[in-house]
Amino acid sequence: MKLLVIGTVAFDAIETPFGKVERIEGGAANYISLAASFFSKNIHLVSVIGRDFDQDYVNMLETRGINTAGLERKENQDSFFWSGRYHMDMNTRDTLATELNVLADFNPVVPNHAKDADIVMLGNLTPQIQKKVLEQMDNSKKLVVMDTMNFWMDTQWEALMDVLQYIDVLTINDEEARQLSGEYSLIKAANKIFNMGPKTLIIKKGEHGALLFHDHHVFFAPALPLEDVFDPTGAGDTFAGGFVGYLARTQNLSFDNMKNAIIYGSAMASFCVEKFGPNKLIELQRAEINERIKDFVNLVQFDIDLVED
Amino acid sequence: MKLLVIGTVAFDAIETPFGKVERIEGGAANYISLAASFFSKNIHLVSVIGRDFDQDYVNMLETRGINTAGLERKENQDSFFWSGRYHMDMNTRDTLATELNVLADFNPVVPNHAKDADIVMLGNLTPQIQKKVLEQMDNSKKLVVMDTMNFWMDTQWEALMDVLQYIDVLTINDEEARQLSGEYSLIKAANKIFNMGPKTLIIKKGEHGALLFHDHHVFFAPALPLEDVFDPTGAGDTFAGGFVGYLARTQNLSFDNMKNAIIYGSAMASFCVEKFGPNKLIELQRAEINERIKDFVNLVQFDIDLVED
Repeated sequence: MKLLVIGTVAFDAIETPFGKVERIEGGAANYISLAASFFSKNIHLVSVIGRDFDQDYVNMLETRGINTAGLERKENQDSFFWSGRYHMDMNTRDTLATELNVLADFNPVVPNHAKDADIVMLGNLTPQIQKKVLEQMDNSKKLVVMDTMNFWMDTQWEALMDVLQYIDVLTINDEEARQLSGEYSLIKAANKIFNMGPKTLIIKKGEHGALLFHDHHVFFAPALPLEDVFDPTGAGDTFAGGFVGYLARTQNLSFDNMKNAIIYGSAMASFCVEKFGPNKLIELQRAEINERIKDFVNLVQFDIDLVED
Repeated sequence: MKLLVIGTVAFDAIETPFGKVERIEGGAANYISLAASFFSKNIHLVSVIGRDFDQDYVNMLETRGINTAGLERKENQDSFFWSGRYHMDMNTRDTLATELNVLADFNPVVPNHAKDADIVMLGNLTPQIQKKVLEQMDNSKKLVVMDTMNFWMDTQWEALMDVLQYIDVLTINDEEARQLSGEYSLIKAANKIFNMGPKTLIIKKGEHGALLFHDHHVFFAPALPLEDVFDPTGAGDTFAGGFVGYLARTQNLSFDNMKNAIIYGSAMASFCVEKFGPNKLIELQRAEINERIKDFVNLVQFDIDLVED
């Protein structure tokens, strides 16, 4: 299946308790595409970069089967820049700086050859830009997956409600699911969010795993307990990239196959956090992924008998 | 296998966002015994109550196969009393009152017929009292399981380190595992705690499930996502009760069987939170437990293929 990915491609400055990096390639669409590239070579990236973004990095994406024809470069501006500092628990972070630069007036253009994508992955961006992408697609699309964040719930509620009508799978974290629905129970939250449009909901809980809701079915993918979490930046996007990449590869959009897709997404995210930025994803080998999938199987596999009186 | 349970049997006053109850039977050993009674009828309770504790409730425990010969009643004092208020997220609570009463000078006496118990479950109490129980046991015991809390880490560090040497399985929550070990990573925490004595560690994460560590093996039992969590009081003790009860029934202390035991423990805990205090456990039926075990299987069961290049 053809996969379209939209989102940021950017520079990050990251500080964690284990070190800091002043400038590293980041952005949602970067992580999503990289993760998906382990499963599909039919990936089309729509994003925007500035004059400062390294062409070698873009070429590296191309060699991985990520078509960058839709990656616009604006020669008179710099790339989107985010700077953040993680606390010891790695679940909370402070944003130190956000420089929109090229993102301020980003008008996404989907190349003609990508308008018939089967799966559209809308990385976290303003709901208006996410909708502009959907409006350019022809009627081939079979699955639209969207990520968003609390910031758009706070500031763009109506636009968010508008685009949500067109979404098949929404991926948000537990706090965002609670904010979006006004419900504390994640089961109740899922049911309310289904009424906003999405037929499937993925709730990401970071080190506590991820929940997949569809109809009255719930599936839980654990996070692998790790000795060291070096840098969580991009883990959620990497998770989404593994998820859509696996679906594109297997061409099977059933709930049962989505279970496997979020296990693969969780495995990819577990690698992402091992090094700064996308460094681990760039050097990752197939054999490591398959070993980690076995770790996930061992982590939750059990063979139980029911008890009789 | 014969199971010995020690811990509090007490009165609680509980306030949650969904209601309040002024006085209900609580205490670690109460929840542990009730949960275990669904799996074993060879349970021996060591605890202390005061003049105010209802004999009908004690009789109810007896009818469930819980031998209360070791449940001392002090006629000149009241029972241990705890009062707490839960916040909306149900993960945090404020203790409003703690009245030690009979617990202040509790000197546990293990009845002769219980000294040959195979499994000893030390509910949360001072480490000194936990050790006093172990000193009364003969050499039959095959497994000692202990629960403790941050309060004893703050106030009784040396006594805690002393008793930990004699423990096979320690059950604590994630925050306590981090405090006890000084490590944020739960994998590193487990390895440090193994050096304190326990060969197996269960880390309870409430709504985020539970981790079972042994040697280099890790198993994860999810918590079932629930529409309503009515009252979390006793959930951790109920989890422990299901765990030791299932082990006692199956007479199998292997790591693989402990996986099933924590799934049963998680299932029992998921019932506990449905009503105030132990009310749901008291009315619970076998068929409900088996249905819930199936829910757990569906929640995490997947059938995955590895991906080739």
